[in-house]
Amino acid sequence: MIDVMDPVAFETHPDRYKHWKLDLTDASSGIARLIMDVQEDHGLRSDYVLKQNSYDLGVDVELADAVQRIRFEHPEVRAIVFSSAKDRIFCSGANIYMLGSSSHAFKVNFCKFTNETRLYLEDASSESGIKSIAALNGVAAGGGYELALACDEIYLQEDGNSAVSLPECPLLAVLPGTGGLTRLVDKRKVRRDHADVFSTVAEGIKGKRAKEWRLVDDVIPRSKFNDTMTKRAKELADASPRAKAKGPGMPLPPLAGSRDRQGAGWIINFKYITLKIDEKKRVAELEVRGPDHDPPKSADEMRKLGPSWWAVQAFRELDAAMLDLRFNFLDVGLLVIRSKGELEKVVAHDKALASLSGSDWLAKEIALFQRRVLKRIDVTSRSLFTLIEEGSCFAGSLLEIALASDRVYMKDDEDNESGIRVQLSPANFGPLPMGNGLTRLQSRFLFEPKRAEELRGREGPMTTQDAVKAGIVTIAPDAIDWDDEVRVAIEERAAMSPDAMTGMEASLRYGGPETLETKIFGRLSAWQNWIFTRPNATGAKGALTMYGKPERPEFDWRRA
Amino acid sequence: MIDVMDPVAFETHPDRYKHWKLDLTDASSGIARLIMDVQEDHGLRSDYVLKQNSYDLGVDVELADAVQRIRFEHPEVRAIVFSSAKDRIFCSGANIYMLGSSSHAFKVNFCKFTNETRLYLEDASSESGIKSIAALNGVAAGGGYELALACDEIYLQEDGNSAVSLPECPLLAVLPGTGGLTRLVDKRKVRRDHADVFSTVAEGIKGKRAKEWRLVDDVIPRSKFNDTMTKRAKELADASPRAKAKGPGMPLPPLAGSRDRQGAGWIINFKYITLKIDEKKRVAELEVRGPDHDPPKSADEMRKLGPSWWAVQAFRELDAAMLDLRFNFLDVGLLVIRSKGELEKVVAHDKALASLSGSDWLAKEIALFQRRVLKRIDVTSRSLFTLIEEGSCFAGSLLEIALASDRVYMKDDEDNESGIRVQLSPANFGPLPMGNGLTRLQSRFLFEPKRAEELRGREGPMTTQDAVKAGIVTIAPDAIDWDDEVRVAIEERAAMSPDAMTGMEASLRYGGPETLETKIFGRLSAWQNWIFTRPNATGAKGALTMYGKPERPEFDWRRA
Repeated sequence: MIDVMDPVAFETHPDRYKHWKLDLTDASSGIARLIMDVQEDHGLRSDYVLKQNSYDLGVDVELADAVQRIRFEHPEVRAIVFSSAKDRIFCSGANIYMLGSSSHAFKVNFCKFTNETRLYLEDASSESGIKSIAALNGVAAGGGYELALACDEIYLQEDGNSAVSLPECPLLAVLPGTGGLTRLVDKRKVRRDHADVFSTVAEGIKGKRAKEWRLVDDVIPRSKFNDTMTKRAKELADASPRAKAKGPGMPLPPLAGSRDRQGAGWIINFKYITLKIDEKKRVAELEVRGPDHDPPKSADEMRKLGPSWWAVQAFRELDAAMLDLRFNFLDVGLLVIRSKGELEKVVAHDKALASLSGSDWLAKEIALFQRRVLKRIDVTSRSLFTLIEEGSCFAGSLLEIALASDRVYMKDDEDNESGIRVQLSPANFGPLPMGNGLTRLQSRFLFEPKRAEELRGREGPMTTQDAVKAGIVTIAPDAIDWDDEVRVAIEERAAMSPDAMTGMEASLRYGGPETLETKIFGRLSAWQNWIFTRPNATGAKGALTMYGKPERPEFDWRRA
Repeated sequence: MIDVMDPVAFETHPDRYKHWKLDLTDASSGIARLIMDVQEDHGLRSDYVLKQNSYDLGVDVELADAVQRIRFEHPEVRAIVFSSAKDRIFCSGANIYMLGSSSHAFKVNFCKFTNETRLYLEDASSESGIKSIAALNGVAAGGGYELALACDEIYLQEDGNSAVSLPECPLLAVLPGTGGLTRLVDKRKVRRDHADVFSTVAEGIKGKRAKEWRLVDDVIPRSKFNDTMTKRAKELADASPRAKAKGPGMPLPPLAGSRDRQGAGWIINFKYITLKIDEKKRVAELEVRGPDHDPPKSADEMRKLGPSWWAVQAFRELDAAMLDLRFNFLDVGLLVIRSKGELEKVVAHDKALASLSGSDWLAKEIALFQRRVLKRIDVTSRSLFTLIEEGSCFAGSLLEIALASDRVYMKDDEDNESGIRVQLSPANFGPLPMGNGLTRLQSRFLFEPKRAEELRGREGPMTTQDAVKAGIVTIAPDAIDWDDEVRVAIEERAAMSPDAMTGMEASLRYGGPETLETKIFGRLSAWQNWIFTRPNATGAKGALTMYGKPERPEFDWRRA
């Protein structure tokens, strides 16, 4: 089963968008418009047609790019209005034929990416003051309404046709898997019985009832719709804290990565990141390299460095490598992470970013981006082992990668002559929380809630024994045992059932409090994954398989 | 596939236990001992052997009964010590051959029941002061260790053999599905990387490391083990608030239910509960009857009424009916709930219980039992529609059943002459919370957190229009439309994919805060369900299927 034209590419630019138009004509009023106009015949595969503004991964990659560029390149934008260029349809959600003909692993990874894109839209609102409006000038069905749910406000055009709906359960026997059910009851706080009715009525709900049940914020006659949307966007833009964003934006140039065959695998190379894939062992090795230049001393210096600043480029490359791994190397079950560089340089760059992000919007955007990249690692369904050896530089923001890992191995040199150290920085104590709202240190020390705070005073490099005592290291083999112990651990992990590891890691990585975000990835996605594998959805007579065919689906009625 | 000797029976008594011994010889010191001694050849089916103190549903039914009886019948007991009568093995968890040869629906329902039993053990500790100790006098593997995790304290015998382990992932490619992963990181707050190592090491962990990682509370030499356990149990018993429990316990007699074929289905009849099963329509109808006697006016009167008090008997029967439905009628997707009786009588009994439970341990136990029965309904994987018509008595504790439903239909009689009413009672405002810690009214009104409290003043019966305004009713068809609208809604619901409904209902029923309990049923169970359906676990070459065979399992390596 080929899910997409291999490999999936995640880099794009508004000039090359096929399905979205980023309209900045009202940018001086603080408004960007994202207009969905999906080109039916330009899906990532040719065996489905993207009718009715339905989307596939390629459509969502453009959306993710657009929101990212608005954050970095257009500081004047403080409100986004989503609408459709099609008549009568806003968006009909993920393309059903694409879903029906994709492998389970692709479906799950596709849903994860679309979930991240919607969460990042909410992050743009809550963290950067970029408010979003879903201007539903047509039917918003399934994933179309789920996109609307990720906006701050939802307005429905009153025209006798436009409606909101989640037809997945009644029509396809799957869940609205892009956060829809969770956002209904947890974000919009729709009453559970109303949500039940709404989620089982294929044709959806419109008019007064849609507003009464809080499915939309208002219903507006067609004649006034566009003007009202612009007016409301202007109000949101005017009230946004981002109004204070000063200084030019930072264009995001293409990443100059290479991708080559190497033995029984691949080598993906960027300036600060190398990802090696061993397809036979089903293991990937990631090397992250520390800074090779001085950190900026001022906002001006930061703008001069621009996207080539290590704090930006290394994390953009890391993000690209993680997405490449997720979509293009499904058989790889274990990612082994190493770093190379100087601890103090990482700390210096972290401190520069922390210092600038208090007063400069762009520095804050960079920190928020690092946070999103690290969250992407947290929810990546691969076992993660970090290895700390000679020459590594797991300090601060890079130490977060180790703390995101399922295990941390650190070589123990009893004489402390090898120089193997880790180091904390301000990045470990606030700016890079996980989806559960806690820092990775807080999540690690749920039993001793004060411990993370106590480590704040621990400046300077830590030896392996210090790091063990601090609770950062899982296993610290000595130099004699290191090679064997690490090799066996890697082999054993790569031999485990990928499904069991996915479920186990999803359960162990998120102790403590729950948020909308952890509920979506932990609870809703788990149910969606389950339903995707069930014959009632994806079997030969399942509803997803049978969609659009004349016969009715057949169900195994046993309730599990 | 036949999962058990049909039908599964949930009623038992210590005199008839096959697998557990309830030892009350130290009851005068406040200690009960529950000794596991599984009879290999007395499983619920004859095609597996319950070796190594492994369990099936029959074993767990006895455990649930024992804890329930300790709560009601033995007020002197304030600590339970769990141990094994076998040499070298405490408990090896759910029987693997039983799991491997059971249907998916049975496996999921089995796990749900065992989860409830463990949560109720924790409930006995937190709500009734009955503390529990896992005295691991042998290996505690998988579900055996998960039972220990549900105890307040875990002690491991130091004998060179005894260890704790969760071998499910490495050996069987499934999750420890009875709360194990969640309790590791959320209850015992084991560090996530330690939990990762522990959950992938088939042989488990013992000795110093088991204690260091907080997998157990202490490791105790064999020679001192029994004495130390008794001493510790005595300490817990002495410190328990249940020490103040006065007055005799209340024996729980068998429920006198009948079970008969009726047309294309079954009729299960108790004094206050009737459950009708229509196997062709895949719909069950539940009728709950209100009180037919006066409520007790004092603790003495309550003890005289004993288990025949409506507040006890109706809820015991309701619990029995729900378990019968869950296990014996898997094809039934929708439960339609009605009631019959007098509102004011339900309110009077609720008030009597509320008043007595402030000062009397037995009344409190009854209220806690009602709460568990209602929680059992919340997590029952069937669509729940409540119908409120002429002669119904959905008040207070019975109104909670309506509020637990996915939808509430109430017939609208515009002239209010039909006498169709609902009514609130003290039972709706605190004593019967859901697993998320909120009352059902609070869970219903997440958008207006004060609304539940505002309803507290609303005494007296409410008409349909009042109940609609109060937010209790989903849909209120008038008398002319009622029959058709209800019939169509039932038919439509019963035609939906059972898997989609299970996932949808699990997502919509629990908005708001999360607890250990909601995490177990929402997140962990969903992942476990998913993994159970995957070929890597249950396919022809899956690890669960291949367990005990000479060949190795074969995996599809794609990470989802």
